[in-house]
Amino acid sequence: MKTKLLITALFCLSGTVMADDILSSAPNGIMLPENYSDWQIISSSHREDNKTMRIILGNDVAITAVRLGKTNPWPDGTILGKLVWKDATLDKWKKATVPGKFVHAEFMKKNAKLYKDTGGWGFTRWLGMEQKPYGDSPAFVKECFDCHQPAKDNDYVFTHPVELP
Amino acid sequence: MKTKLLITALFCLSGTVMADDILSSAPNGIMLPENYSDWQIISSSHREDNKTMRIILGNDVAITAVRLGKTNPWPDGTILGKLVWKDATLDKWKKATVPGKFVHAEFMKKNAKLYKDTGGWGFTRWLGMEQKPYGDSPAFVKECFDCHQPAKDNDYVFTHPVELP
Repeated sequence: MKTKLLITALFCLSGTVMADDILSSAPNGIMLPENYSDWQIISSSHREDNKTMRIILGNDVAITAVRLGKTNPWPDGTILGKLVWKDATLDKWKKATVPGKFVHAEFMKKNAKLYKDTGGWGFTRWLGMEQKPYGDSPAFVKECFDCHQPAKDNDYVFTHPVELP
Repeated sequence: MKTKLLITALFCLSGTVMADDILSSAPNGIMLPENYSDWQIISSSHREDNKTMRIILGNDVAITAVRLGKTNPWPDGTILGKLVWKDATLDKWKKATVPGKFVHAEFMKKNAKLYKDTGGWGFTRWLGMEQKPYGDSPAFVKECFDCHQPAKDNDYVFTHPVELP
């Protein structure tokens, strides 16, 4: 009886771990970075074509590269995060556009060898507040990489770090 | 001779410290926060009336208050920082507005008793890349506080923390 309970408990535990893995791994095997909203700022943008506000953050490797001015190419270990919200209007200042409903978070993870077919970058996107991984198969990254071609001479990164004192 | 050198050295050192103090203290005596560009995000905005992009950051006290949902009122010790840049256009994506030339950084420091005449907030603004303190006398805060009156029911803060997963 004890053995049966133990096996049942282990099975349940294993099932939980698997479910978490499925939820936090993109089709190309890249995991959702932990605590990314605690990262430091690189820039922001307002896309007036699709009415979204964006804040671009970086992990420690990325921020060190920014402070050193070594961002073309970005070093291996860099993760850039772009957080995207629908446009909203600031209630007390109508001529200010601010982030409204959360749309998605997307990340570029640099490893020149591992992701050599996509410019050295591993792309992921996580939809909505539930952070559902985007893409049906590992081939989804072609869409990301194709879109980033205009920024090829900036290591495929659209963002330029902001000017700071 | 040694004594004279020591006195000269101490005088020079004292002179340096005083110069730094003058550079980094606003007319109301509040100092420029250290390393504020390392703080975590609270929100962003795009003011289309004066064509500026803004990122709003918070110190540790502020970010803890955000995570707990306790931001009206903000707790004593909160510092909110607003970094402001002129609008620019992203070179590889023309329909995106991005931060260009750095304009100024401004801060609200919460101490309900110390700053009771201005809603519990100590205001400062630091102009340009040289971070020159704004204002000719301590009375400059009247201008800040008057402008923040529309946000009185939100503890005089225009910014609402972004929605995050």
